[in-house]
Amino acid sequence: MLDYKLLEALATVIECDGFERAGDALGLSQSAVSQRIKALEIRLGQPVLLRHPHLQPTPAGRRLLNHYQQVQLLERDLRGTLPTLEEASPRLRIALNADSLATWWADTIGRFCQSEGLLLDIVIEDQDVGLKRLRDGDVAACLCASAQPIAGARCVPLGKMLYHPCATPDYIERYFSQGLSADAFQRAPAIVFGPHDQLQHRFLAQVGYHGAFPYHLCPSSEGFLRLAAAGMGYGMMPWMQVAPWVEKGLLASLAPEQPLEIPLYWHFWRHSGQVLERLTQVLGEARLQ
Amino acid sequence: MLDYKLLEALATVIECDGFERAGDALGLSQSAVSQRIKALEIRLGQPVLLRHPHLQPTPAGRRLLNHYQQVQLLERDLRGTLPTLEEASPRLRIALNADSLATWWADTIGRFCQSEGLLLDIVIEDQDVGLKRLRDGDVAACLCASAQPIAGARCVPLGKMLYHPCATPDYIERYFSQGLSADAFQRAPAIVFGPHDQLQHRFLAQVGYHGAFPYHLCPSSEGFLRLAAAGMGYGMMPWMQVAPWVEKGLLASLAPEQPLEIPLYWHFWRHSGQVLERLTQVLGEARLQ
Repeated sequence: MLDYKLLEALATVIECDGFERAGDALGLSQSAVSQRIKALEIRLGQPVLLRHPHLQPTPAGRRLLNHYQQVQLLERDLRGTLPTLEEASPRLRIALNADSLATWWADTIGRFCQSEGLLLDIVIEDQDVGLKRLRDGDVAACLCASAQPIAGARCVPLGKMLYHPCATPDYIERYFSQGLSADAFQRAPAIVFGPHDQLQHRFLAQVGYHGAFPYHLCPSSEGFLRLAAAGMGYGMMPWMQVAPWVEKGLLASLAPEQPLEIPLYWHFWRHSGQVLERLTQVLGEARLQ
Repeated sequence: MLDYKLLEALATVIECDGFERAGDALGLSQSAVSQRIKALEIRLGQPVLLRHPHLQPTPAGRRLLNHYQQVQLLERDLRGTLPTLEEASPRLRIALNADSLATWWADTIGRFCQSEGLLLDIVIEDQDVGLKRLRDGDVAACLCASAQPIAGARCVPLGKMLYHPCATPDYIERYFSQGLSADAFQRAPAIVFGPHDQLQHRFLAQVGYHGAFPYHLCPSSEGFLRLAAAGMGYGMMPWMQVAPWVEKGLLASLAPEQPLEIPLYWHFWRHSGQVLERLTQVLGEARLQ
């Protein structure tokens, strides 16, 4: 049997991003935490942590963390049937796309988390990195736009989100009064989430433009909206996020007839216990378009 | 004289997070981009890029990127006086705290960016990492709560933001109907931004509680607000972000009389050209409380 105190030390060091903070969280000295990590590495015959360029688990460490999380979830189910075993609930670590978190996610699962006493550890990632984290065992579930299956995980379609290229009416008048022309796209600053963001390119391809364009980089859903509302650019935004802004006349779509449809999929490890199964059921009721 | 084509290749590989995308952006083949990086490494006698665990500059590469950005900003000033030199404007890479980006930032600098044709490359970091990125030359400026000076950089105070611990009225009634007791803090789930987030601890210390507490981890300003509004927890939020929610009765402060005041400082490299000086002047007019 594994010594779960050692795994707990590893999980806490990663979660707290430091030995000293992990010690505080566990009520241990920093050196006691180090000793537990060392004991784990001796037991395993290889390192579980990398210190540089920043604190992170090795691939072996990740597999241990994944296992630890699964055991915690199973214990959670057990405690449901043996209430006297009560203990602080484990945090469920999941990767989400930023736009879901900024819109429908909390409203959909809030009541469920309250009634289950479930705590979340949310990581914001685009789909490629999110699925990689799931494969590495760093998260127990991943919500993203990719249907690509992961061995050992289930993939449930949740519907889709509609995206519109939005900007202020002033901005649209300034750059696009002649329509969605190549000349306009070459001059009008866009807002792009990050280097992996393909929404902007997909929208431009859809309207027949394939050239270069100026853009701001802004890795935040809320920041995206704020930059657009300040007249700094246009960007692809979830309709459910911008609709109230459009109703008030603060933002408008450049292409009201041509939204992009982005599907959403929920990937999660099988055999991680009932709480993930029940959460999946709640998500299925989200009724995205 | 350095060959700036090589530096441009390095900057583009980092910005696009890949050789193939960098080639697309520069109108070059992937192998031509690789050759430029190799030529730079031969010239320098050491690597400029690390491939694992993900694509990133070495410390030497970072210094080159910082220099490249400074030269771009100086060229920008030059083009202001020699308009025939016109070229796509460089993106100004800056680190911001998530709460500023979710609130006052875009409204304050939007008009300035429009009139200057300035594009931003925004990185969201807490203060420790943001200042480290500035020191490493990865960003040209950093907005954060630390006044800690960086050699070679200027530090300008911008005022402060007020934070309140907020939750839904239902949530407050459920957990805090007996006031801010130790028992309540042990049971009431909090929402914490990440392992480096000290706001929650500072609030608890301010009201005399020093024990453990359950919490969700959510590294997004907007997500924070959504989780709280869905009744999942209470968290420290900028008053300027939650005020409309409080007015509508959707959220309320747990401690209306005891806000935390977080100062904000703008750090930027001296001698990076006039655009940063002018941007700094605009930020000085933000009139945060």
